[in-house]
Amino acid sequence: MENKKDTNRSFVIKKRIDLLRDKMKKESVDVVIMTSSDSHGSEYVADYYKVTEYFSGCTSDNVVLLITQGGAFLWTDGRYFLSASLELEGTGITLMKTGNPGVPAVEAFLNETLQEGMTLGYDGTVLRAERGSEYRQIAAKKNVSLRGDFDPAAGIWENRPKRPGNRLFFLPEKYSGESFEEKLLRVRKTLVGSISACVISKLDDIMWLFNLRGSDIAYNPVALSYCIVLKDSVKLFLQKEAIAASEEFAGKSEENLKSVEILDYDSFFEELNQLETDSMVYVDPAYCSDRMIEILSKKGIRLIPGTGPVTVLKAVKNETELRNLRECYRRDSVELTRFLYWVWANAGKEEMTEITLARKLDYMRSTIPDFLDLSFETISAYGKNAAVVHYEPKEESCAKISPRGLYLVDSGGQYLSGTTDVTRTIALGEITKDMRRDFTYVAMANLRLMNARFKFGCTGANLDMYARSILWEKGIDFNHGTGHGIGYCLNVHEGPQNISWRIRPQSPGVIFEPGMITSDEPGIYRDGEYGIRTETIVECVEDECNEFGRFLRLRPLTFVPIDLNALDLSLMDASDIRKLNEYHKEVYEKISPDIKDPEELKWLKNATREIS
Amino acid sequence: MENKKDTNRSFVIKKRIDLLRDKMKKESVDVVIMTSSDSHGSEYVADYYKVTEYFSGCTSDNVVLLITQGGAFLWTDGRYFLSASLELEGTGITLMKTGNPGVPAVEAFLNETLQEGMTLGYDGTVLRAERGSEYRQIAAKKNVSLRGDFDPAAGIWENRPKRPGNRLFFLPEKYSGESFEEKLLRVRKTLVGSISACVISKLDDIMWLFNLRGSDIAYNPVALSYCIVLKDSVKLFLQKEAIAASEEFAGKSEENLKSVEILDYDSFFEELNQLETDSMVYVDPAYCSDRMIEILSKKGIRLIPGTGPVTVLKAVKNETELRNLRECYRRDSVELTRFLYWVWANAGKEEMTEITLARKLDYMRSTIPDFLDLSFETISAYGKNAAVVHYEPKEESCAKISPRGLYLVDSGGQYLSGTTDVTRTIALGEITKDMRRDFTYVAMANLRLMNARFKFGCTGANLDMYARSILWEKGIDFNHGTGHGIGYCLNVHEGPQNISWRIRPQSPGVIFEPGMITSDEPGIYRDGEYGIRTETIVECVEDECNEFGRFLRLRPLTFVPIDLNALDLSLMDASDIRKLNEYHKEVYEKISPDIKDPEELKWLKNATREIS
Repeated sequence: MENKKDTNRSFVIKKRIDLLRDKMKKESVDVVIMTSSDSHGSEYVADYYKVTEYFSGCTSDNVVLLITQGGAFLWTDGRYFLSASLELEGTGITLMKTGNPGVPAVEAFLNETLQEGMTLGYDGTVLRAERGSEYRQIAAKKNVSLRGDFDPAAGIWENRPKRPGNRLFFLPEKYSGESFEEKLLRVRKTLVGSISACVISKLDDIMWLFNLRGSDIAYNPVALSYCIVLKDSVKLFLQKEAIAASEEFAGKSEENLKSVEILDYDSFFEELNQLETDSMVYVDPAYCSDRMIEILSKKGIRLIPGTGPVTVLKAVKNETELRNLRECYRRDSVELTRFLYWVWANAGKEEMTEITLARKLDYMRSTIPDFLDLSFETISAYGKNAAVVHYEPKEESCAKISPRGLYLVDSGGQYLSGTTDVTRTIALGEITKDMRRDFTYVAMANLRLMNARFKFGCTGANLDMYARSILWEKGIDFNHGTGHGIGYCLNVHEGPQNISWRIRPQSPGVIFEPGMITSDEPGIYRDGEYGIRTETIVECVEDECNEFGRFLRLRPLTFVPIDLNALDLSLMDASDIRKLNEYHKEVYEKISPDIKDPEELKWLKNATREIS
Repeated sequence: MENKKDTNRSFVIKKRIDLLRDKMKKESVDVVIMTSSDSHGSEYVADYYKVTEYFSGCTSDNVVLLITQGGAFLWTDGRYFLSASLELEGTGITLMKTGNPGVPAVEAFLNETLQEGMTLGYDGTVLRAERGSEYRQIAAKKNVSLRGDFDPAAGIWENRPKRPGNRLFFLPEKYSGESFEEKLLRVRKTLVGSISACVISKLDDIMWLFNLRGSDIAYNPVALSYCIVLKDSVKLFLQKEAIAASEEFAGKSEENLKSVEILDYDSFFEELNQLETDSMVYVDPAYCSDRMIEILSKKGIRLIPGTGPVTVLKAVKNETELRNLRECYRRDSVELTRFLYWVWANAGKEEMTEITLARKLDYMRSTIPDFLDLSFETISAYGKNAAVVHYEPKEESCAKISPRGLYLVDSGGQYLSGTTDVTRTIALGEITKDMRRDFTYVAMANLRLMNARFKFGCTGANLDMYARSILWEKGIDFNHGTGHGIGYCLNVHEGPQNISWRIRPQSPGVIFEPGMITSDEPGIYRDGEYGIRTETIVECVEDECNEFGRFLRLRPLTFVPIDLNALDLSLMDASDIRKLNEYHKEVYEKISPDIKDPEELKWLKNATREIS
């Protein structure tokens, strides 16, 4: 991201918008709307899809850009207000700060702007269905025409990056634990009665079902694809380029995907049009494009919207996956622990910055067997930077590490044997009394949730209280969920379960089941001062079944010490200290066999010692 | 309740059913359905409404009785399986144990039994709307005629008890804290846009709105009534007999209910028929009859179903109510504490039974100023009887109290200054290690919830975890909610808020607000051995508002010692012991000024001593 004022840059943006306005005039489109999304509701999008960035220069996520002949408006959220205002300087685009008082939402703005007889243009293949249906309602009410086939970039964006179509490979059954055929049988069991198909555009769902992996999206080992599961056939849509780039795929697809019709990615909408009219299909509007819903609706097919069957099945890991995950997390924990030792031992002695530390950790992780990639950009944050929850250090502005205060590192890897995610905060020398108090509360919150035992039937809104209640007791809170689901060699943020205290009437929460993998990551953030987060990944396992019913509990997968130097034991209850000692005992047992350096081992022994 | 086999009794029941079958034949009704409900969804019903008991002899609550020419079937729930099977012996009525495997629900049974062309008869003025709409759907699907004006008892039930129409009185403003006019203004604020009316059949809502009280329902100081709030008028429907019996009402209604049209209770359905057709009205199907919904639907009036505006407003107590409640609970706590002392001091010395103790406590409570009635039948349970959650001691079978084991007493009063509800369990001499352990966990659960601090936005599903998590940690659970709302000189069970961990998709839970009064009553029940429950009523109050947002917390209203003799301190965390000491300090401060007897005071001092 280039933050310096750049008149040449704003001139370029203005010119692009002018070209778009000419095109709008020619095609009689009055208002154009663009979003920073791909066709699959992905968390990250490939450069090919960055149309809003092309026309605005704004690199934020979660952007809506609206262009008329007279104006240009860009909506983004609080995380990006500062960077977006710098990026938009001189472009003539008005920044609309979503949620700020007096700033209309996109829908309210459209409602004002659209007049009878006008035409609204957008690219329905990338507009998310949830947004599309709102725009559609407004247009209908206002008697406005829709042009969902209006691609603003077509004919204007020269040198547009190619749509990624990278190598595909199969995840062997020793990693996936279940063949495609077995998974297919389980998905088909949900096609009951007049439900004729499951239409999938969510990329990690498709990868899971076919035991495929790709690399079209940063950090997510997925390939651009679609899929339609019918009662008697399965259609998988892949890019020709991707297949051509994947020798392995061609060699094994005959064997691995017997009975699957492999079709071209670009023929998906056409095939969708061939579905039986008088039927119902599963489709998840949070992960599909407006075009998909439009085609299905026009055919009169009834939709079963919401979390699809594959998302639900994928969330419960099988025995092979769990076995692999336990070992994968153990090895990942070894490297993070060694890294933390190194930082602790060398802070103040060697020059180090947030970036050099991130690179060191990324390198160490890459030496772990089965390593593929990071699971997200490493958050390496020192001092006040750690109070920014989604902090990404920049080469030119990142902090130097001194032997005092708190250092937070949130990182993870993609492995054939799993996807990891872990955060630890450590004390580098002196820390203040406030830091110590907050660190202790966060550790207590983390340990209490990690040890939760609960009745079957609990959702994340119940479980969050194990972690959050100790903070609330002290008048403290953190402004993010306590836990998210995690994929298996797939997205680090995977639904449908999560751990969050807020109960949303629209989605009353998913019941936890044995085999679900979730993060446990409470934090305390003091703006401009410091940030603390302790994140341990936990698996949900069966506990006892007795006269009072069926109990489940959580068990840690992550085994990295919680910094004893940063704790104030006087704030902890005896039961919290017991939990900490039990955890540290297990940390030592699990990871010490892989720590060969005597100094490191000595440190680990001390870092996991029993306290009282 | 008469549990002995009684051939004469079963003969009488059979004869009544024969008469009903004759009437069914004459009126061409094939299937008759009756329920143990009144027209208002009340928790208790007056004898006048006990039609199911008349035709079956079954005294259970929550009964559905279905009669055809060939069969008779009675549904009830698990609490009553034993008593109902004894009561139905010899009557020819089949007991349908709701929820048991293989037992069809009423709806499934109707679906089987009803055939095209048949007629289903029921009394739509007492059938709850929620049930009615289900039966209606089945009938429509099966092409069955409905006779919602078929009163099975009419012409058969000789000497039917009169519908109660007891004395009405106004609750003075020093108790209610808000005039009817002010309340009306607040209700009218919810009549926005095309919403023209709030139709109320829930009796405690009507009493609250008009600052009226009655005594038509056991334990609930309410009068049979209906109400329609319109934008420019208010109609209150009362029984002529009740008005005639209430000198005070006649004297004050002019002044207190200016602008209210007071109409006859029996003209309600007619008036309902006069509502504006093209409008929307609030109506709560959980507390209204099928007839109401039928009339409104036939007129094409759109319903806004669910918790009504009055229920929501009533739940948040005003300053006057809260001030009165605090004093009311304090005085109620004094008498319960004195009672517990007496039991403790005299167990084994004087003869006492569950019943004599209940009578003693009821008498002591009746001496408190402003006392009107009990708020429910006192649960006085010794030993294994306390494991039955809804235990009611019977004269002929109740237990004698010995100086060992646990005694549980759950009781409450109706006062002009509030409604109370409190449970304590005490050790009478020796108790087992298991009892001590369970008692300690229940005390911890009670204290943790009583001290909860939480972010605004929490519902009962979040709050329940404060109490329940310590039990779950030990693999223990209790099969009831942790808390229910409580009325002000109204029903002891009052919605809409409650504290229960289960999240129901249909009702995602009510957000807690300052001024809400709720019970905190965790328990542990060991079948055939003992039962423990500790119930403290708490009010929700404003806490701090800081950088992390707005916090609320709970504060006790009940100040009765938790039996230190029954605790195992080694199981408690330091923070639990701190909470207990703080609570006991406050108990002593609040109630000791009213304890005049030196022995009692000495005991109280010791019972609330600081422990460590």
